[in-house]
Amino acid sequence: MAKDKNISMSVIRRLPRYYRFLSDLVDKEVDRISSGELAKRMNLTASQVRQDFNCFGGFGQQGYGYSVKALKNEIESILSLKSGYNSVLIGVGNLGRAVAMHMEFEARGFKLIGAFDQDRNLIGKPLNHLIIKDIDGIDSFCDENKIDVAILCIPKEAAESIVEKLYGFGVRYFWNFSHFDISVAYPDTIIENVHMSDSLMTLCYRITDAKRNITETIQK
Amino acid sequence: MAKDKNISMSVIRRLPRYYRFLSDLVDKEVDRISSGELAKRMNLTASQVRQDFNCFGGFGQQGYGYSVKALKNEIESILSLKSGYNSVLIGVGNLGRAVAMHMEFEARGFKLIGAFDQDRNLIGKPLNHLIIKDIDGIDSFCDENKIDVAILCIPKEAAESIVEKLYGFGVRYFWNFSHFDISVAYPDTIIENVHMSDSLMTLCYRITDAKRNITETIQK
Repeated sequence: MAKDKNISMSVIRRLPRYYRFLSDLVDKEVDRISSGELAKRMNLTASQVRQDFNCFGGFGQQGYGYSVKALKNEIESILSLKSGYNSVLIGVGNLGRAVAMHMEFEARGFKLIGAFDQDRNLIGKPLNHLIIKDIDGIDSFCDENKIDVAILCIPKEAAESIVEKLYGFGVRYFWNFSHFDISVAYPDTIIENVHMSDSLMTLCYRITDAKRNITETIQK
Repeated sequence: MAKDKNISMSVIRRLPRYYRFLSDLVDKEVDRISSGELAKRMNLTASQVRQDFNCFGGFGQQGYGYSVKALKNEIESILSLKSGYNSVLIGVGNLGRAVAMHMEFEARGFKLIGAFDQDRNLIGKPLNHLIIKDIDGIDSFCDENKIDVAILCIPKEAAESIVEKLYGFGVRYFWNFSHFDISVAYPDTIIENVHMSDSLMTLCYRITDAKRNITETIQK
């Protein structure tokens, strides 16, 4: 399968969602699915599904539908979910703990090899298969291990200084839950932000907008 | 300030980010800022900033920059962050707990009025100002309270059945951390999804793509 080099971010961002739906279908032992049926389940149009898949050379024959399992495996391979990138978790408060416990890192392309905090009450305690380490030891950990990704579950101010340090050790990839906008300060990094409070504020706007529209419709 | 009714979602999704940056500037006691300076700090272009603000009638006079405090207040008002929408948390596992402890609901337009779980070990325990309630009591809670928003921190299968129930009680707004695609089954709802694993998979793709490009550049 040919891989197009200039795939837009909006197509790429849909791939994990395809992957989730296809994994579900595999679990439900569905063998084949048409682009129309897949589109319907995902609230897309059949032509959008076909266009998306065409970016990667297409996965099926017109009229026969897609093999669910083959398609899932293709997308898994495009997303490189078997990469096992070495990752460290910075911050094991409520959020960091939830991230560590909740996410299937190995199935998503990552391997959690360290967890760090500054809280004396947490250091030395277990977190899944790891023991939480003192953040002061991050330098020697970086010397001894090749870290691909840092997962930041710390406040903005703490993130600013730890990113500077990790960047110095060559870390360029971040999964960022903090409010520090890393890419502004470090343009040569790759960042995925999870800004939960932005999502919550957007929801607030959309609810207010919907309520206003309902009121206006009633008044007409 | 006139509010345009047809503001694109991409503009709306930038508002929380503006709001965060402006809150920061207020904290740092910055009085005025030009669109150019704000754009630089946010990795946008000055013309994009001006265009975004023009959607809401514009906030400043050419050449004078914006009053940081006034701009922050305007955006707060557009986002309706003082709405205090009644919200319930469904699922107080690691993720639900992190969401409850980590988010400043009141400053984001929401009010957490209930937290529910099915785990006997959690029911009756405190969570911030709340006591965790048995999920079996959600019906009577819905009868007695007007719920605007449900926050779903539960697995997909549990989400499917609880959404059906809440929808029956008139709940139409969801902050969804589960993998259940609510809007496919219930098109007349407003959903903000936080799909953390999609973000992680996207990161995996982007890292792999970046590493491939580096390798190819070296080989050339």
